[in-house]
Amino acid sequence: FHGWHDGVAAGSTSHFTGGVPAGIPPQLVAETVLLPADDPARVTETLKSREDIAAVLLEPSGASAGQVPLPQGFLAALRETTRDQDVLLIFDEVITGFRWSRGGAQARFGVTPDLTVLAKIVAGGLPGAAVAGRADVLDQLDAGAALAAGREKVPHQGTFNANPVTAAAAVTALSIIEKQDICGRAESAAEDIRKGMRMALVEEGVPWGVYGEASAFHVFLNPRRLPIDPMTFDPLKLGFDGLKGARSPEKTNRLRIAMIANGVDLNGSGGLVSAVHGEKEVARTLEGFRTAVKWLKAEGDV
Amino acid sequence: FHGWHDGVAAGSTSHFTGGVPAGIPPQLVAETVLLPADDPARVTETLKSREDIAAVLLEPSGASAGQVPLPQGFLAALRETTRDQDVLLIFDEVITGFRWSRGGAQARFGVTPDLTVLAKIVAGGLPGAAVAGRADVLDQLDAGAALAAGREKVPHQGTFNANPVTAAAAVTALSIIEKQDICGRAESAAEDIRKGMRMALVEEGVPWGVYGEASAFHVFLNPRRLPIDPMTFDPLKLGFDGLKGARSPEKTNRLRIAMIANGVDLNGSGGLVSAVHGEKEVARTLEGFRTAVKWLKAEGDV
Repeated sequence: FHGWHDGVAAGSTSHFTGGVPAGIPPQLVAETVLLPADDPARVTETLKSREDIAAVLLEPSGASAGQVPLPQGFLAALRETTRDQDVLLIFDEVITGFRWSRGGAQARFGVTPDLTVLAKIVAGGLPGAAVAGRADVLDQLDAGAALAAGREKVPHQGTFNANPVTAAAAVTALSIIEKQDICGRAESAAEDIRKGMRMALVEEGVPWGVYGEASAFHVFLNPRRLPIDPMTFDPLKLGFDGLKGARSPEKTNRLRIAMIANGVDLNGSGGLVSAVHGEKEVARTLEGFRTAVKWLKAEGDV
Repeated sequence: FHGWHDGVAAGSTSHFTGGVPAGIPPQLVAETVLLPADDPARVTETLKSREDIAAVLLEPSGASAGQVPLPQGFLAALRETTRDQDVLLIFDEVITGFRWSRGGAQARFGVTPDLTVLAKIVAGGLPGAAVAGRADVLDQLDAGAALAAGREKVPHQGTFNANPVTAAAAVTALSIIEKQDICGRAESAAEDIRKGMRMALVEEGVPWGVYGEASAFHVFLNPRRLPIDPMTFDPLKLGFDGLKGARSPEKTNRLRIAMIANGVDLNGSGGLVSAVHGEKEVARTLEGFRTAVKWLKAEGDV
């Protein structure tokens, strides 16, 4: 639950062509095949032509909480191909679990993976994580099952395993999610933010895009200065390269600083809305965004 | 700060001959050379004969908080060899940092590594970790230094990076350690426990060994039933194989359960004493130990 894994570090924020990031063993990078999520045919081809793939791992929202959305039907097709090829399908629901819906992205989209990875969201924000999924796969971690089958169990020691404070936070958080429509409230506030931001861009004449799903919103800062109409912006048309490949960390940082100066701390060029964000917070976010946009316009940053 | 790393999982609790644990990529295990810490000559030979070793990593207390103590002079010799061979020396001070002394095991033993790994102990028990050491090595993680040198920085993202609650706990805990003789108090209580346990073993006629350093204590349960005098027991004479190789998880578990039934929760077959453990806690631990030993004797477990 600490934020990254050496084995998938290539391709998480850079090295999208499979190069080896500094400090990561190349032998480990070589064990992973990095595939573009906006090219379903290539994913299918690779799964059908190779015998050495154990599992496919992805964020069911698309990379980075939906910053790079998946094409319509991609998840269902991937489920079918992985099942046919006897390859495990693993959803990284660290962000989307208990956020895209009470049942995560898998319930929202009706696609059930073989394994689901959850992190702090399952523990009310405290250090905790979980792997959920098929009993026959999880048996690999079970001491009793391993003993009965005469095989070694997969290790999973951890200092916070069975931590009482984490467990209490988890029970409380999950009870609230179960009993109240937390997800719906956060999604509704996020939709207000997305709409309001779009309106601000139109009124300020700024060719950026605002998009996102559930309680997430993303601002596309258009570093290549494409002709964009904020009201009809469709991130899918830009694909992975246009969205993530075209990222400008400097421009993102300037927007973030301008927003902080206006009292709103963005997470990069977007954010995740929570159920405690009500009308007041939405209004303040939109006010801050409009001022930040004006500032960036004045400095020639749009 | 989560309890293990795939790259060194072989040899942490099993697979001491370098085999691949279940669920760990063999390619990663192959990147690590596992050497016995009770054979300094072999370590030196390996470092001198190979060109592909980047770093030596060990617990400066000996494995598992000193469960397998290091021979006298081993650390100093290792420091000399690694310096001569231009290999980094890394101390895992996750347990010993701020415990073996205010300056960790390195201050206690007067041996300075190139890098030190610290975990929750640096953060007052909350999720936090640190890597300390030579500036020229740490520059690999520094965005500014990497940019200036025209190289890529080593990634180290993490959800709890710069976490305010963790930082507050860390500042508080480290201030207490700095101003009060916490380490000395814990060590003194641990020494009382070690002495008292030895006495109980002598009086009960049980051929086990009690040992440990600083605030740690270990009980050697003698599963191979060697002739042991608790008063003169020297773990170094048993070496790695005799101590860790001879472990009996079942016997350890029976001692632990007997101790819990007497109100004391051991960490395996030993424990770490803290500065809040005073005379009362020491007495209660020793009382519980004596009763547990009697129970295990009655069941033929000693």
